[in-house]
Amino acid sequence: MSPLSRFSINQMTVKQLPLPDLVEQCVRLGVPGIGLWREPVREYGVEAAAKLVRDAGLAVTTLCRGGFFTTDSWLGSNRAAIDEAATLGTDTLVLVSGGLPPGGKDLTAARARITDSIAELAPYAGERGVRLAIEPLHPMYAADRCAVSTLDQALEIAEHFPSSQVGVVVDTYHLWWDDRAPAAVARAGATDRIHSFQLADWTTPLPAGVLNGRGQLGDGSIDLRAWCERVAEAGYTGPIEVELFNDELWARDGVEVLEETLRRYLAV
Amino acid sequence: MSPLSRFSINQMTVKQLPLPDLVEQCVRLGVPGIGLWREPVREYGVEAAAKLVRDAGLAVTTLCRGGFFTTDSWLGSNRAAIDEAATLGTDTLVLVSGGLPPGGKDLTAARARITDSIAELAPYAGERGVRLAIEPLHPMYAADRCAVSTLDQALEIAEHFPSSQVGVVVDTYHLWWDDRAPAAVARAGATDRIHSFQLADWTTPLPAGVLNGRGQLGDGSIDLRAWCERVAEAGYTGPIEVELFNDELWARDGVEVLEETLRRYLAV
Repeated sequence: MSPLSRFSINQMTVKQLPLPDLVEQCVRLGVPGIGLWREPVREYGVEAAAKLVRDAGLAVTTLCRGGFFTTDSWLGSNRAAIDEAATLGTDTLVLVSGGLPPGGKDLTAARARITDSIAELAPYAGERGVRLAIEPLHPMYAADRCAVSTLDQALEIAEHFPSSQVGVVVDTYHLWWDDRAPAAVARAGATDRIHSFQLADWTTPLPAGVLNGRGQLGDGSIDLRAWCERVAEAGYTGPIEVELFNDELWARDGVEVLEETLRRYLAV
Repeated sequence: MSPLSRFSINQMTVKQLPLPDLVEQCVRLGVPGIGLWREPVREYGVEAAAKLVRDAGLAVTTLCRGGFFTTDSWLGSNRAAIDEAATLGTDTLVLVSGGLPPGGKDLTAARARITDSIAELAPYAGERGVRLAIEPLHPMYAADRCAVSTLDQALEIAEHFPSSQVGVVVDTYHLWWDDRAPAAVARAGATDRIHSFQLADWTTPLPAGVLNGRGQLGDGSIDLRAWCERVAEAGYTGPIEVELFNDELWARDGVEVLEETLRRYLAV
């Protein structure tokens, strides 16, 4: 088995590469999987993108992202995201669930709204063979991006639904600090809820807005190997996706960053 | 009872005011308590600062800060901080415990080191009538400032020691996102471990470095009134300290900021 057999590159890690270039480089380097984002895919054309990756023999490991359930247009937007995931041939739509509504201060109510929204979407997703993967985001995003801050919270929501319809994303960047996360990973694995496993490292200082400072693998504070072992022990055998949002990486040559990411992944 | 009877202003909130000016304004406005920081106090002179606040009739609610147990000089530095707290007449030294050692990736080991360090300090503090108050910091500081990220973790450490020696700080800025925090507050109150209660609001976007973006009360996402009720239900009747690190507030006139903070506090 190739050491890259489970590797997937998330499109955002090298967003400077146009989709056809990224696909070409994946084929050249033996990268078997790719995680896609809705905006660049729609720009390229969803059907065209689906054909491009299919013809190249790439697996689409995830589509990012649905969610943001506190916006008025969430239902139509999320149904479209599910349709796009099905067209692209991926079984996993990542959900960034949204934070507080404008002026809101009630995280418990926000989480209840997220649960209700997923209840409306889950059957629709299930009919199309798409699983909704709730991604807990780091608590620093609780107000403005995602009221689901821990893996335990994500599981509490997911467990209202069949695991074939709703699961979770385990992303090291968001969860590494949490001493309860290892037990939650085991619980997620035992109930077949780990729908995606993503790697990014934690580097400081954080940039303004705290969005685009995810560290290249090995540059930061996270014991990534321990996380790989943890999800393996929980029974997860799926793709390992690398998703970095990083202004410094985006300023560099995309092919160089892709090759570096592969080397770092193999070192982990 | 004055509506300000439990209010305390942390010196950092209006760090643009020299200590004598701050003390004078507190007396003028009827502010009964003040939280001090080691650096400006040492600059002014510890004995002189002690006399200044004592003569003004102000209570020193906390001294910030001890901790940073991952540095080589932690023992001498923390003993000095305890001595300074005793001289200033406060019974509470706030601990910011430190993050990972350089190159480290093991938060569990960092927390064990914090526990061991506190074990060395606690009797020394107890002899001087000073309580060590472990402050859990927001998980976004786990790597570089404080490996203690939740109130539960802080309590797990504190509960190794008598509550007269070691307790916790409940700071809304650091804990607001955590759905387990309310139960932890109740547990902390039941064991007489709430040694300080601090208010700050959560505003976004966060600034680079994420240190100096604590929101003025009422400007952000935290239900501060609910937090006040929560600590009251847990039996806490001590000072309510407002500690804001905020570049925008620091750029304004200090007296104006102090008066605004009082108005916001009363509105909560």
